[in-house]
Parts: sequence; C-alpha cells; structure tokens
Amino acid sequence: MLPVTNALARLIAESRWEDVPVAVRHETKRALLNIAGCMLAGRREAPIGLLRAAFPGSDAMTVALIDGAAANVLDFDDTHLPTVIHPGPPVGPAVFALARERQVSGPELLHAFLLGVEVACRMGNAVTPGHYERGWHITGTCGVFGAAVAASRLLGLSLKQVQTALGIAATQAAGLVETLGGMAKILNSGFAARNGIAAALLAAQGFEGPERPIEGARGFVNVLGGSQDYARLTEGFGTQWELGNVAYKPYPCGVVLHALIDACLALRGQAFDRVTIALHPLAIERADRPAPRDGLEAKLSAQHCAAVALLYGAVGVDQFSDEVAANPEVARLRAKVELTVDERLDKAAATVNLHTRGGLSTAHKAPRIAMSDAELEAKFRALAGPRADEWMRFIRGLDSSERVVLPG
Amino acid sequence: MLPVTNALARLIAESRWEDVPVAVRHETKRALLNIAGCMLAGRREAPIGLLRAAFPGSDAMTVALIDGAAANVLDFDDTHLPTVIHPGPPVGPAVFALARERQVSGPELLHAFLLGVEVACRMGNAVTPGHYERGWHITGTCGVFGAAVAASRLLGLSLKQVQTALGIAATQAAGLVETLGGMAKILNSGFAARNGIAAALLAAQGFEGPERPIEGARGFVNVLGGSQDYARLTEGFGTQWELGNVAYKPYPCGVVLHALIDACLALRGQAFDRVTIALHPLAIERADRPAPRDGLEAKLSAQHCAAVALLYGAVGVDQFSDEVAANPEVARLRAKVELTVDERLDKAAATVNLHTRGGLSTAHKAPRIAMSDAELEAKFRALAGPRADEWMRFIRGLDSSERVVLPG
Repeated sequence: MLPVTNALARLIAESRWEDVPVAVRHETKRALLNIAGCMLAGRREAPIGLLRAAFPGSDAMTVALIDGAAANVLDFDDTHLPTVIHPGPPVGPAVFALARERQVSGPELLHAFLLGVEVACRMGNAVTPGHYERGWHITGTCGVFGAAVAASRLLGLSLKQVQTALGIAATQAAGLVETLGGMAKILNSGFAARNGIAAALLAAQGFEGPERPIEGARGFVNVLGGSQDYARLTEGFGTQWELGNVAYKPYPCGVVLHALIDACLALRGQAFDRVTIALHPLAIERADRPAPRDGLEAKLSAQHCAAVALLYGAVGVDQFSDEVAANPEVARLRAKVELTVDERLDKAAATVNLHTRGGLSTAHKAPRIAMSDAELEAKFRALAGPRADEWMRFIRGLDSSERVVLPG
Repeated sequence: MLPVTNALARLIAESRWEDVPVAVRHETKRALLNIAGCMLAGRREAPIGLLRAAFPGSDAMTVALIDGAAANVLDFDDTHLPTVIHPGPPVGPAVFALARERQVSGPELLHAFLLGVEVACRMGNAVTPGHYERGWHITGTCGVFGAAVAASRLLGLSLKQVQTALGIAATQAAGLVETLGGMAKILNSGFAARNGIAAALLAAQGFEGPERPIEGARGFVNVLGGSQDYARLTEGFGTQWELGNVAYKPYPCGVVLHALIDACLALRGQAFDRVTIALHPLAIERADRPAPRDGLEAKLSAQHCAAVALLYGAVGVDQFSDEVAANPEVARLRAKVELTVDERLDKAAATVNLHTRGGLSTAHKAPRIAMSDAELEAKFRALAGPRADEWMRFIRGLDSSERVVLPG
C-alpha cells in the first residue's frame, strides 16, 4: 500500500493558486457566492437560533459550527453529483470563520475553499459506492476532511502539519444518515466545519497524528468505507477539479424534484383541470406526498412542488414555509396532481402533462447541469437579505484583495 | 424492534440517586477520585499544553476537551474490562467542566458521573465483540454517549431531551484505533467529553434529534457495530451496575503488563543474573520491546516494565519518562529480561523467574481485580500534586454537599 495520506498531503501543501485555470477560479467564486447566500439566509431559521443559544461563543470554531449548519438548513446549497456530498456547508463556513480571525488574502481564501471542496469530494469518491449506503452521512464524514484542508491552507501549514490535520480529521469523521429528515441533519455539516478547524489548529501547534489515517489498517477508509478506491484521492489532482461536478440548487428542495418544477414553470399560465407527472419509480418512492404537514415535509413532496410552481411562478424559500404548506389554495392544487411511473425516465427527469380544455400541454425536463451567473446572482440576492450588495462586492473582489475583511 | 433509545432515555431520566446501593455510591467516589488524579497529573504533560495553546477558551466544552485528553494521556485511568472502554476520561471531565458552570449538588454530580459511566459501558456491551475489532476506538465512540448522559443529568433534562441528547451523541460518535500508540489517541476521549456536552446543551434548547438514533436502520448500532446486543443496553439497569466491571490501573501502562510488574516487585531485592518471564502469546505480540526509544514506547515494553520494577521498586509516571527510558542502568537490566511463551497462561497473567546464584526465585501473578481504598488514595496523592488535599476533601464531601465548588 502506497502512503496515500502523505501523497495527498503533499498535493495539498504544494498546490498554488497561480496554477489553477481561470475557469476553475471563476467557478470557485460562484460556489462561494452560492454557499454564502445559503448561509446568510439560513442564519434566520429557527434551528440556527437554538444553536446560537446553546453555543454563545464567538471563536472561529463556534462560528463555523453555527454557520456550517446554517448553510445547509434550507436544503438550497450545493451537491457533488457523484457522491451527493454537500461540500459548501462544511468548507465555506470554516473558511469564512477562520478568515475573520486571521490575516489572509483573497486568493488565499479562494484557494483554501477550492482545495477543501476538492478533498471532501475526493474522499467521497474514494469510498463511493458503499459508504453512504452503509448509513454514513457523507457530507459529515468527508466534509470534515474538506474543512481541515481549507483551514490548514489558511493557517499556512507545512506538509507534515497538513498530514497531521488529515489524521485528526479522520478520527473525528462522523455523521449518521439516521438524522436525515429531521433537525439534527444540519449538525453534521456544522460539526464537520468546526472539527476540521480543530484539526488544523492542533496541527499548527505541533500536535501529532497517525502516519496513515486514511489508508491504515484501522484508518478511515477501512473502518468507514464503502468502496476503497484510493486512486481517486490523488489521480489528476490539480488538473481535474471536482468542483466541475458540483451543482448549485436552483430550488430549495430535493434534486429529484427540480426537473418537474422547471416543467411546471414552463407550462404556467394555462387554465387546467388536472396535472399528471411522470417520474422514475425511485423519485415517486421518495417524493409521493400528496398532503405534506409542514414546510419541511413539503420539500419532499412532488405534489407540493408542482402546485407552488404553477400557482406562484416561483419556487424559493417562501414556497416551503409552514404557511404555504397549509394554504388551502395550494392544497386544492396539490389534489389535482397525479403521479405516474415511467421507468424509462432518468431518476431526476420529469414529464408534466397539463390537462387543459383544449387538450394536453406537455413539457419534459431533465435536471439542469449548471446555473448561469445571472441565475446564481438572482438566487444569491433572494437569499442574502440586506447585506447582499456588501457580500457580492466582497466575493467579486477576492481575486485582487490582499487582506480580506469579511462583511458583518 | 422495540424503541431502544426511548427505553434507555427513560431509565436515565427516571434514575434516582436515593435508589443507588451504598456500595455503588462508594465505588462512584473511588472512580471519580481515580480519574481526578489522572486528569490533574495529565494536565502537566506536553501534549496537553499543545491542546491548551490550540484552544484557549474557558467554556465548559473546551475545558472538557482538554481535561478529557489529560485524563487519558498517562495511560493510568480506568478500564471497563468486558469492552476495554476507558469510561473515566470522557465522562469525568465532562462532569467537572459542567459542574463549574452550573449550580449542582454533590449527589447530583456523583449520580451524573455514575450514569454516564453506566451508559458508555452499556453501549460498549451492545456492540462487543466486533466493534473495537473493526477499528473503532471504543472509548471515543461509546464515551460520547456517556458524556452526553452525564451532561444531560447535570442540566436536568427531561426524558424527551435525554433522548435528543443520545441522538446528537450518536451522530458525533467517532474515533479510530489507527490513532493508538500516538499522540492523537488522547483526542478521542477529549472530543467525546466535549461532544457529549454539546449534545446535552442543544437538547436543553429544544433542538430535536432522530427518533431511533441507536437502533434505527441507519443508526449507531447498525452503522458502527459490531455486535447488536440491544438487550445489554437496558436489562438490569439500576440493579446491575457496570462500574463493578471497571478496574483502576495500578500502573500507567498496558493492563497486560500489570501482573508481571506485581511479580517483579514481589521478587525484588535479590541479586540475579537474568530474568525469564512467561506470558501469553498475545501479550508477547503486543509488548515484546527490548529497547524502547522513549517513554511512550516504554509503556508497551514488557522488558522495560520488569527492569524498572526491579530497579526502582515502584512503577509510576516517573518510570515512563524519556529520561528513564534512556537510562543506561535501565537498558542494562532490560537486556537481562527474556520473554517466553506460555499458552496456558491467562492473557494478562505472568510468571517471573529470577535466576539467582542460589537457583530460581519464582512469582506468578494474575491481574489484580481491585485496588484497595488505601492504594487508590496513594495513587491519587502521587498524581494530584499540590492540590491533592483540596481535591480529596472535595470528593469525600460530595455526598453531603448541597452546592459543589470545584477546586481550581
């Protein structure tokens, strides 16, 4: 067995922002803008208030914990499609929280974020398939490595120290799929953000970690994997960027429902009696919820997503409030939606048929691969609230900032 | 599947100190004294200084993290024999750290510690055998439940809140065997102490956790076990106390070496040419280290343990310093020690033969089940340093203290 952890640590320690292609640099800013919006909007949610009350501290680890949960609470963040990791919530808040305390330049911040996302996703690739299926909430278990790597770069750690940080991340890797569908899910990205910083802070002090925390007989991959595809950790590092496989959510609900929302938005404006929606059987298994009891459940309801798309012509955070979920007009529309199985469809695609007086109006959509810059900005503005301009300027200016000062 | 988490939470929430037998109450104080001594001495070790530098905060979570590592750093703590959990390091420091911040009585503190140890060990019983063998450092993975339970009791949580705390503990359960033999091992008990407090603090705020974090399809036991012996979690709770299976270490080294130290101490004072020590093959596999390079490695060296017992007549923290490990006189004695295999021996027993001029002097020892009160006090005094009296008074007075005030 080659020394995998050491090889990975070397790639991390020796990576240079100057060598990152322009397109990847641009994507880094887009990813950061996306997660900043989710974090700022998430901070206003009730569970984040509970976190703030439980943990009143203001050190970087505490801030990263709370913001790491906030960035995930609206289910509006990002998805590494090959692994379903949400890399933004553990990595972005860790970067922001540390950058408040330390003197770092804009390129250093961007580079740290990019490398954190890269390593979180590569750890996921190494243990996929199998890891998530065994019950590991991969955003937590792999996210802690990403946060540790991002923090390591911001702290300017040496190769040996990066290796230690990876080791201390490994022994903290945690997060159960059992938490999904409930409030505790958001803790997994929050704890990953905090614990990654802890790993880097200890490494910076000269603390020592195991030699082979990733590949050792009792290391991360052997104990928590899944697949054991070590080559995925290092092959193409610095030339093939995983950020290219990360999608930003256009709607704050399950990825499997995005196509049907797009189709309903395309058909909107016609009078209709009923709607039939063809979905892959897996999508129906996950999202056939004709009468969701609250906003959280509405996020997993195909009927609700169709109803609000047709009624409001927009599907944002507001359309998943408890009020909208209980709105009689929305309930009336949900009752008009009928789901039908189509095994030939892609798992995330949808065909929507609007039964109008004149006959049938049909739209078929596959999930969108990428949001445009304009779409991302619009999403950010809708989320970020009063500080949107300040944050937009901040992120736009990062390439050339010698000393970042984060907005409040 | 019965609702295991709920049943366990009920037993925890409804347990009353008045119902705890006098002998168990006494043992609780002994266990607390033992772990307090380890913690106070551990605070003076170099790795704990690194932790303090990395985490300068003084909130209960930070204090518990540092003291949870300190209590384990000398390998002098306690062992739940059926599972090899060290319950004291995650649970004791969590209790001490929270008790500094909150108004609690002595009996509340003792009861919280007892229940924390109980649940940590019962979680271990449920997943033993198999869990540790898979590579989980059980002191971390099960210790976090113990710390969460102890903290829950100190915060006066309701049944529902205790259940939530167990859930938030479950999604933080972590710690790899890969860290053993190095500095990072002590982090597992430290993080468990801190994370258990975090779970209870969130539960106290009304945060919510999964319904079945222990027994759910993607819960702790299915994802991290090992064995799946759910009955061990609840059967006999309140009548059969796991603290009865917890041994306190008489020497700061691996349990497997204690019997040979006892035997060497018994034979001391005779001139000899060489020493042969018969051990179980497993003990030899783990501890055949004729020339340990430093104090840490000396803790795993049968030859070193025999040499210092024969030379100094005492085996404490001092005998595992880097200086003593490098002492030429000790090295000379280590070279006179020969290990021989005896498969008939118990894994932790030893037969020591001193080859003297007059012939053979032999002592056979099995590991000691229990230390007497006087032995425990002597151990505590040797460890605790200048504050020994103050701490001794504090722990002795806990039964009758209405509002505890911890020594500095």
